[in-house]
Parts: sequence; structure tokens; C-alpha cells
Amino acid sequence: MISLNETHDASLTSWVNCANQSGTDFPIQNLPFAVFKTGTEPFRCGVAIGNQILDLKAISTLKPFEGKAAEALTACASETLNPFMDLGFEHWSAMRLSLSRALRAGSDLESQLKPCLIPMDKAEFALPCQIRDYTDFYSSIYHATAVGSLFRPDNPLLPNYKWVPIGYHGRASSIEVTGQSFHRPVGQTKAPDAEQPSFGPCKRLDYELEMGVFIGQGNTLGDAIPLQKTDQHIFGMCLLNDWSARDMQAWEYQPLGPFLAKSFASTISPWIVTLEALAPYRTEYQRPAADPKPLPYLSSDENSSLGALDIQLEVLLQTPAMKGSQTPVAQKQCMEKLSQSSFRHSYWTIGQMVAHHASNGCNLQSGDLLGTGTQSGPKPEEAGSLLELTKGGKQPLNLTNGEQRTFLQDGDTVVMRGWCEKEGAARIGFGEVAATLLPAKAAN
Amino acid sequence: MISLNETHDASLTSWVNCANQSGTDFPIQNLPFAVFKTGTEPFRCGVAIGNQILDLKAISTLKPFEGKAAEALTACASETLNPFMDLGFEHWSAMRLSLSRALRAGSDLESQLKPCLIPMDKAEFALPCQIRDYTDFYSSIYHATAVGSLFRPDNPLLPNYKWVPIGYHGRASSIEVTGQSFHRPVGQTKAPDAEQPSFGPCKRLDYELEMGVFIGQGNTLGDAIPLQKTDQHIFGMCLLNDWSARDMQAWEYQPLGPFLAKSFASTISPWIVTLEALAPYRTEYQRPAADPKPLPYLSSDENSSLGALDIQLEVLLQTPAMKGSQTPVAQKQCMEKLSQSSFRHSYWTIGQMVAHHASNGCNLQSGDLLGTGTQSGPKPEEAGSLLELTKGGKQPLNLTNGEQRTFLQDGDTVVMRGWCEKEGAARIGFGEVAATLLPAKAAN
Repeated sequence: MISLNETHDASLTSWVNCANQSGTDFPIQNLPFAVFKTGTEPFRCGVAIGNQILDLKAISTLKPFEGKAAEALTACASETLNPFMDLGFEHWSAMRLSLSRALRAGSDLESQLKPCLIPMDKAEFALPCQIRDYTDFYSSIYHATAVGSLFRPDNPLLPNYKWVPIGYHGRASSIEVTGQSFHRPVGQTKAPDAEQPSFGPCKRLDYELEMGVFIGQGNTLGDAIPLQKTDQHIFGMCLLNDWSARDMQAWEYQPLGPFLAKSFASTISPWIVTLEALAPYRTEYQRPAADPKPLPYLSSDENSSLGALDIQLEVLLQTPAMKGSQTPVAQKQCMEKLSQSSFRHSYWTIGQMVAHHASNGCNLQSGDLLGTGTQSGPKPEEAGSLLELTKGGKQPLNLTNGEQRTFLQDGDTVVMRGWCEKEGAARIGFGEVAATLLPAKAAN
Repeated sequence: MISLNETHDASLTSWVNCANQSGTDFPIQNLPFAVFKTGTEPFRCGVAIGNQILDLKAISTLKPFEGKAAEALTACASETLNPFMDLGFEHWSAMRLSLSRALRAGSDLESQLKPCLIPMDKAEFALPCQIRDYTDFYSSIYHATAVGSLFRPDNPLLPNYKWVPIGYHGRASSIEVTGQSFHRPVGQTKAPDAEQPSFGPCKRLDYELEMGVFIGQGNTLGDAIPLQKTDQHIFGMCLLNDWSARDMQAWEYQPLGPFLAKSFASTISPWIVTLEALAPYRTEYQRPAADPKPLPYLSSDENSSLGALDIQLEVLLQTPAMKGSQTPVAQKQCMEKLSQSSFRHSYWTIGQMVAHHASNGCNLQSGDLLGTGTQSGPKPEEAGSLLELTKGGKQPLNLTNGEQRTFLQDGDTVVMRGWCEKEGAARIGFGEVAATLLPAKAAN
């Protein structure tokens, strides 16, 4: 069970001055991990501090840490975070404490570590780890109800929803990191009034605003992970855009679930924010009184640590028109917010997702990614997909520049951001995940 | 497109005499690949010949081959087959030709290679490759109809079935090789008349008789694999038992498909029989005249090479009572055949499965495993699962020793075998996949 400690102290400052600016996603209380490179050097692990990256491979040669943190740092001298993630919670926590002390204002290590800082805007990111299995949950009851009412008007929320953290296996190979560009997928669709299906470019291409949960240490095949121990297995979280071809999905998804409608691309943010960094933002999820209490393997009296997480989320759209005839900096700012929500509305917590996933003995592994499912909030304008925002494409969104959107058009860039903020705690940010839709490829 | 060549000649014999005995699964026309070890030595790649394994790591030091076969052999000096699979069809075919010539009666290499043979019954097997993504199809229309009528009596075969090779993502981490023992899974189930679900050991544990298809060379994200080129991407096939918890499946599977009902264990046979070895058993699949013609991306005029495969399949059960009070050899023989079918009945071919999977640009990778779905034939006694054989558990099977089964009981071992046989061609066998169900673990 993760408890608050000196690394969470909101008054801490860093000798990396940009990390002390209000509004930064990466103050010294955050310390998320990623895999990056600059120029032609190989990919390596780093930790974010302000607008800089501390190169962990570079500092590992300096041997600045002791004990478990030293072991953790050795594991970080790799092209992926898997060896570090695999070490387990005690090593993650020791590494965080050592990094926090090393980067604090007044640290003896300042002069040694300063040459190992790299400006984040010079870095290129890779996936932070080799993703093993990818599982996608369906944890927003508002999303499940809204989508259910479009796909099954007579039966929107199925009877199992309030008992089972519904999830399904997803495609790991097509997950890429922020900056991904992908072609509009082609596939089978069938209009309700058509006699037979046809094959061609997807006409209802959508984003899904999700969080990703990375498993650190796994479990042995056959052994469950009790809810109370899930914190020891979750390494951290990122932002996830689970692109969806709605017209392909509607035709293919019965009876075994979505397949090609989801497997062409998914995009994650580069930084994994650790569960320990998020500890101040744990909050209690209050199920409506009329809802059933979860079965014992999904119930806990320790809600303060195992409960919901108040992570604020937003989706922004940048159309080709918004990108045109402007400077790169102005382009970056010219985006339109489509919706905003919070992960605290999730009907199931990440602990419940992990406990459920392993309850049958399924072995989770270092590098497994769990998607939370689209995070739509209770209000219609808090919806995490265009499918919901446009009522299945029936009510186009009117953008302030005069454009309209039902689903995405070629050249559209979708940006998602996430952050935690409250009085008395440091802001903990996720950065962003951005990706661009290219036109469908010509048939080959 | 794979064509017959000298390696398929049914009159070929080997200097490994046991490979010339009628009834062997592994004559010189087969030459399947596996990963094995003996004693405390590390796992390594091997090829089956009769009841022997040719140790490819050992022969790689002898440098017996030239050109692409030499490159292939170097790739086989690894703990998994992935590097070899990744080389592509020309290397697989060159390797097969060189192995065939080296193992033929009269080969100059006999004296050099003989010390590199290891008796198969002394070997322990591992997964033949690192399995990346696992996808399970649903390609038997007889299975889909029978299961559909149990889960959805009013709507057994859904309208998409004859158009879409239905598939879904599965769990890769819990796939193990023959010999696997696993605990009966626990999970949520809900009896139709129960007010709420309960959590406990699965009561309807079933096997599924499937074939597995290993992808050799993948495709780039965004590029499709045309049907005519699928043979270049498929490395080979194995037997697959996709264990299923039917009561958990019924409660959890809507709307996103099976999840925990399948993710606790899947078992494969150790030998990958290459697509080239199976070439003589290609056959045309005749869709009923009333059925729709597949869409162009799933249609081919080259049915002889891209069509169905006549692989005979059988399922055998060994109960604890059959194992009791007998010698090990007698135990092995004391099994009861539950059903027999053929993969030729599959409504979709493996080429169509691969072309469909990549049609949206999804990137397949070396080591991806595709399950074909349960292979039930047209007759009720050809069903590939207990769910079908017992009509959803309503008609128990009467075993010849007086026992009965609806679903599996603790201690039951399920064995599946597959082979190809016909006049004028050598028998090509898959060996077997066997696994045993242990009692549920006590709750932790």
C-alpha cells in the first residue's frame, strides 16, 4: 500500500530551475520515466524534470546511488524500462527517493548530474517498454451507457456491467508512442440498409480518451493478485488514445468483440507517471447507493489508497485548416478543446481491474499495458469520443473556425492531455499524446 | 505460392531408419521445427526425424549447408525459432531442401550428423518461439452455429459470419507447450435463475480442438498482406487446445467478447509443421452454392495452393480412473477418443484469416500465433468441444469404462492429435498436445 512520504512534499524545489515553475507537468514531485534518444544515439531511459530529461544511462556510470536504488539504476541502463519495472515496488520506491534527493535544491550531486540533462524538446521518444499483452477495459459507466445506447438502443447497459470490470484483449503490435501518424484503415462495413457489406476506407474514424496502466511486476500463472496487493504490481500510468473505426466495429463485433476496428493503431504518451507519484490524488469512488456492492475479491476497506484517481483529462483537435498558414509555434497553440473529464468518474479502479484480470490465474507480465476504456464523465460534454459527442454522428460539432466534424477527417491531429492538481499538493502532469490521421492507402 | 518439389516425393527415405516406418508422424517429408532441451542443457532448436531430434545448434557448428540454408541454420542456433522465422519464405524453403538432402538415405553428411541426433523421448520441450500477439478465429461454421444456438437460441449464426472471418485478440502470456498442468480457474458466474453472480471454481471447464498458425515474416504497420501472398508470411502450424470456462464465458462475454474464460491457459503441441510440408494436403473448399462469394480481398482463383488443408484431428480423454493402477505404458494407451474431425471443414482458410487480419494495416509479427477456432465437423460426433458434444451439458457422454462426463473433472488429461494422410503422399503428422486439469487453488 503506497503511503505519502518526503518525495510528495509540495514545498520541495529542484536545482533544475524550470521544474519549479508553476504549471510544469514535471516538478520534482513527479519524476516519470520514458525511453528517448537524441540524434543518432541509441534509445535509453530517462526521467523528466521540468523541461529537461535526466539521462539514466549516463548517470548510471557515475554510480550516485546505493542499495536498491543502485540496483534499479543499473536496470535502467537499458533500451527499455522492462528490466527496471520487473524489479518490483521496493526498487521503484528506492529509485524515486534517490532521484528526488539527487535533484533537490542543495543536493551534493548537482554538479555531477547537470551534464546528464537533455532538453526535452530535443528528444525523440520510443515506447517506454516492450509491451507484452494489451488489455482494454471499459470502466466508464457513462461511456458504456452512451455507446450501448447507440449499438443496442433497447439494451444499453448490460446486466454484468456493475459486477464485472469488463475487459477484452487488444492488439499490442500496433501501439506506438506520441507523434504517430497512421493511415485511415480500410475494412468491411455494412450500412443498415445495404444488402451486403462492402470493403473500403473507414468513414467513422474516432478517437478514445483513455488512461494506460503499465504492469511492473507480474504474477505466476495460476496465482491471483489480491486487490490489496495490486499497488505492488502497477508500475505507473500514461495517456492512451485507442483509435476506433466505428463503422467497421459495428459490423464485426458480434459475437467475439472488436477486432480490426481497433487493431490498426493505438497511441500512448511517452512518460510513465508512477503510482507513487499519483498517491496524493487517490480519492474515494462513491458508487450510487442503489448499485450492488462489488464481490469480495473486488472489495476493499482501504479505499483511500486503492480507490479512484483524480486525473483531469482533455481532448483537443487540430484540423488541417488550423495548421495552415501559421508559424510552428502558433500551429501548436491553434487547437480546439473538444471535451474535458476526469478519471475519478471511472466505475472501476485500476486496482479492481488488475485484481479481476488475475483472478482466474492469468499471468500478468512486466510491460503489459491495460487500457482503462474511454473515460467519459457524467455530463454529455465530458464524453471521451466523437461517437458520444456527436450522438453517433447525428449532431456535428461546430468548431469556432466555422468547420464541422462528425468523425475525423484526413490530416486531423488529436491531442490528449492529463494532469492532477489540487491545493496543498504539487501538480503532477502526464504531458500529452498526439497523433495524426493520414489518408487511406490505395488498395494493393 | 508454395509448389510441390523434390522434398515432397513420397518415395524418399532417410538414413534415420525410424523415419521410414509406416505410421510415423515425422518422415523425411515432414521436418517440423521445435525448441527442446535434454537434462540441464539450455533450450535449442531442433527438427524431428522419426523418433529422433536433429539438434540444429549442434549441426550449425559443422557448417554443413551453403547460401540461404547456411544463413537459416545460423539463425536456428538460438533459444527460439523467431530469428529463423523472421528470415522469410526463401530461407525456410532453402533450409527444408538442405535438411531433406542431408537426412536422405545415401547422404554424405550421415556420419557427421548422426552424433547430433537425440531421442525424442528424452527431450523436454519449450514454446517454439516467443509468442507475440495471439489472435483466435472462429472459422468452423459448424462450431459457430452449435455454440451460437446454446448462447443465443434465437440467433445462432450472426449475419456477419459468412462475410467476415470473425476473430478476436487472445491472451498470449498463458500459452504453454504440451505437458502443461493448470489449476481449474475461479471466477464470476451467474446461474440463469440466480439473483446475483457468485465467485468460485469454474463448473463448466471445456477444451477446444484448434489448429495454431504461426506467422513467420510480418508486415509493416499500415501495409496489408494480399491473399495471394499470405503463404509467404505463414511459417507453419501446430495443434492448439484453447481451454474454456464456459460458465464464466456466458456471464462475461457481452459486449466485448471472451476474456477470463480463456486467459487462464492454452496449450500447443511442440512441433511447428511448415506450410511447405503441408503442401500436398491443400484442397479446395467448396462453399455451399447459396452462400455469398467472399469479397475480393478474400477471394482467389488459386484455390489449389491457397485453399483448405485436409488435416485430420482427434480428441482423446484420459480420466484419473483410466490412469490408476496401471503401468506407465498402459496408462498412455488407456484413453478414450471423444471425437474426430478434419480442418478441411473450416469455412475460412488460413490464407483468408491472415489476409483479413492485416487488411486494415495491422502489423503481424514473427511469432504471432493465430488460433483457427474450434474445428467441429458437419456431424454432431465431429464436434471439437464438450459444450457441443454434450449439448451444453444436458447430454452426458458415457465412457466405455462406465464413467460419465459433461464437462472436465479434476485430474482429467486431454490429448489432441493431428495428421495428414492420403494415397501417393507421405503421412505428415503433428504429434500431440496433452495437458492436465488440476483442482482449483484455495482462495488467497
